[in-house]
Formats: sequence, structure tokens, C-alpha cells
Amino acid sequence: MTTIYSIINGDFIVKNEASILISDLSIQRGYGIFDYFRTINNQPVFLEDHLDRFFYSASELNLNVGLDRDQLKRLIQQLIEKNNIPDSGIRITLTGGYSEDDYSLAKPNLLITQTAFSFNTENFNNGIKLVTFEHQRQLPWIKTIDYLMAIRLQRFIKENKADDVLYYSQDTITECPRSNFFIVTQNDEVLTPGKNILRGITRKKILDFYELNVKETNISLKDIENAKEAFIASTTKNVLPVFEIDGKAIGDGKPGKLTSDIYKKIGGLKEQ
Amino acid sequence: MTTIYSIINGDFIVKNEASILISDLSIQRGYGIFDYFRTINNQPVFLEDHLDRFFYSASELNLNVGLDRDQLKRLIQQLIEKNNIPDSGIRITLTGGYSEDDYSLAKPNLLITQTAFSFNTENFNNGIKLVTFEHQRQLPWIKTIDYLMAIRLQRFIKENKADDVLYYSQDTITECPRSNFFIVTQNDEVLTPGKNILRGITRKKILDFYELNVKETNISLKDIENAKEAFIASTTKNVLPVFEIDGKAIGDGKPGKLTSDIYKKIGGLKEQ
Repeated sequence: MTTIYSIINGDFIVKNEASILISDLSIQRGYGIFDYFRTINNQPVFLEDHLDRFFYSASELNLNVGLDRDQLKRLIQQLIEKNNIPDSGIRITLTGGYSEDDYSLAKPNLLITQTAFSFNTENFNNGIKLVTFEHQRQLPWIKTIDYLMAIRLQRFIKENKADDVLYYSQDTITECPRSNFFIVTQNDEVLTPGKNILRGITRKKILDFYELNVKETNISLKDIENAKEAFIASTTKNVLPVFEIDGKAIGDGKPGKLTSDIYKKIGGLKEQ
Repeated sequence: MTTIYSIINGDFIVKNEASILISDLSIQRGYGIFDYFRTINNQPVFLEDHLDRFFYSASELNLNVGLDRDQLKRLIQQLIEKNNIPDSGIRITLTGGYSEDDYSLAKPNLLITQTAFSFNTENFNNGIKLVTFEHQRQLPWIKTIDYLMAIRLQRFIKENKADDVLYYSQDTITECPRSNFFIVTQNDEVLTPGKNILRGITRKKILDFYELNVKETNISLKDIENAKEAFIASTTKNVLPVFEIDGKAIGDGKPGKLTSDIYKKIGGLKEQ
């Protein structure tokens, strides 16, 4: 079995031994940011977009990456070559560092990990079920490590026989914890929330492709009930049709026409 | 120099080598809870209250402590004896554990650390300055490790020449990130917010002592302007008078009569 490596502050460490001191502000105070992108055949997918967002998130939390963009890219390239996991997910995490008083910001720790990953294309036809929950994520425009509510809700999701939770706040839909949300109206308009969300990279690609047709707008709980199709989009989930929300069917249990169309255009980019 | 130990899942580890794997859900997803209590002359202060809250927080986040209360107390006692830091702060942290997929809950990791700590009694006379900020903490009744907003605001606090931030939401004051907030009205009523806050142990002691006089009620930004005295209370800060909020003076730059009275009764308990 091949040894898989992670990178901690530039050092290659055997993955299942990679550790940091417990004085790190991620452990003490939940303070950190990250980004996550896929590789297909050892080629990073949409790397520039993910690095843009990674450096932006770091800056928004007053964290210094400690490497410039080219240095970080070289490090990622070295990891890809060393591990040789052609189809994978690579996660870059930047934490608040080893704080002397468990509160003040310190020199950030940069962690890079790689895990085998590829889509199960059957997921698309199976669709998913969502359950709504009223919650507004803090600092939603920054890709922080804060998934406290989402992980606490794992039990709630299970109890509601759903696959994931869909957040809303004051009757306005925002997003799922790890993906963006879209609906197709009865008039074949494709709509997605534009406020108080994380701007996903797959979402961005959909907006770019469909710039004439996809609108960023407020979506209410009522709008969902009237939707013809619904889907979510993310790096790990690609485009996935939503067949049910809060126990009510959307569409006829098969991927809708526009969802399929977008999946072919966007998903095709990443399935090869 | 004496070696200081931490405890990770029951094992005593040299403090500055204590580490956990980066697959832990605290690092990946900011998922964990903690509690913090002081020792004076090697005696834990208000230990039962802190353990009550620790087990409650763990349960609220679906985390299994893995030890019963007596086992945890024995472990704490062993740490106190081994380290012999008579006046200290002891922090017990419980994280989401080493997740296989970086998202699903795993077997929690239990971390116990001890650090020398004693109050600087001069702090009381110096008082502190607060700056307000609109923010409602998520899951405020649980002592989670989430201090994302508070640490991001360190720069904002400094820019506003303040010592700490005071959160409010929809014109109603809640708390500081690590302490509870109180005002004394012109009629000598002592008021403290009762909703959407963490129920601090020092706050509890104040309510218990002053049960006839201290009221839990909504406090607006306007109420602050009219206050005669204001103070904060926490395990690490004890009772500290607030001399200024958003640049406006409260009182005359000296600890007020009721604040001093409460400090003597409550602070005295912990200063010895």
C-alpha cells in the first residue's frame, strides 16, 4: 500500500500521523478557513477560482497564508506528484495558529490534505431530499471552518429522513451547509439566492454558463413549493437534483429537463 | 523548570507536545465544546457548576464525554497533583473526534490543559472600555469552541480603543464573547440579559447572592446610556467595572458602589 502524505507548514508528513498542537486556535476557538478542490487525472479542477477564494477568506479573517500564490501552487503540485491519487479532493486549511493565551491570533498553520474522490454518477438519477431549518450562518461570504450547526443537525436530518438541510432566514432561502441551492420556476427561469451565502465555485460556473438565464434573487419558502425543479451544486456534489423538500415532492421523481441540461454542461466539465 | 502535563484521552502528555490528528472535527469543522474553571491553592473553584455545564454542552452537541463525572473529577485531580500549579485555569475540551470523512461525528477527543493564572486585582480599579457590535452567537446556551466572530473582531476592538466587544441583536444587549454583562440603573436595580446568552458561572453566583435584587431582563442600547454603573463577570475576569461604552462614559471613572459591593461578595470568594 502506498503511503499518503499531508503537508503541514511545508513539511510532508505521513497522512495518518499528521497532527498539530492543541494550542492551535482551530481547536481552542474554532478559528480557521479552508478551501477544497478536486483533481481529475492528477489535474486540479478550477484551481485558480479556489485559490482566489482561499486567499480572500484568509484575508477576511486576518490570517496570513505565509506563501504567495505561486509557492502554494508548487506545494500542491508536489503533493499531487508524491501521492499520485489521480482522482481526489485536496483540502487547504489555514488556522489561527498556536496562540500563547488561547485567544490572540498567532502565526497561522497551513495544512494540505488529499483524499481519493470521484463522483458516483448514479447519485444524479437518485436525487436527494432536503429538510429546511431556520438559521443564518455567521460570516457566510467567508469559507470558514465553522460547521457547528450543520454537524449538530446531522441527527435532525436523519430524523426527518432527509439527506441534507436547507437553511432559510426570515422566510428567505439561503443555502445548504456545503452546497448552493437553485430552483427552476414554472416559467423555466433558473433562480439562486444571491445574499448571505457562500459563493460556491460550481455555482459561479453555472452563473457564467447560464448568464442570460440564471438569476440571483430572493427565494421564499413559498417559491419552493411552486418550483418545477430544484437542485444543489457544489464541488463534491456536482449538480444534484432535489426530489423532495420537507416531505413535499418537487417534480416527478426524475431529474428535470433544465437540471439535466445544466448537469451535462457543468458536470461534464468535471466528469471528463 | 518543572514539566507541565496535559491530558489527552486519559494519557498524560508533556504540555508543549500535546497534539491531535488534523482529521479532528475541531480543526476540520470547528466542532467542539469546553469549560474552564480556576484553581486556588490547588482547589478547583465552583467545579460542580462547571462540570454540570460541561456535560450539558456535550449532550447538546451529541458528544459522548466517554467518562462519568467521578472519573473526570479523578483525572482532573491527578492533573492538579502532577502539575502542582496552585493558582491556575483548567480547561476541559471535547471535540468531534477523528472523522473518517471530515464531516460525520466520530469518537470525541477529551483534552485537559492547565495554565498558571491569578487575577491582577488592580484590573478592578482600572475598569474596561467596551465597543458594541451587532451579532447573535449561534447556539448561545452551549459553551462551544466557536469564537470566530470574537477573534475576527480583535482588530475592530483595537481600532475602537476598547478592551472588549459587547454584542447586541435587534437593539437588545446580550453579552461579551467571554463574559456576561450587567448594568445598575439610576434606581439601583441590577439588571442582566436573560435570553440568547451563555449562562456564566460567575453570573449564576451573582444571581444567587443577589437573588432579590438582580433581575434578568431585556436591556436595550438606550438603557446602557442611562445606566449608573455597568460591569462584566466571568471566571477569568471576575467582576470588572465598565467605564465606557462606545466612547461614552458610564459613571465617573471609578468602580460604582454596587459593582464594588458585588465584587467584594463574589470576587472575594475567588481571591481568598
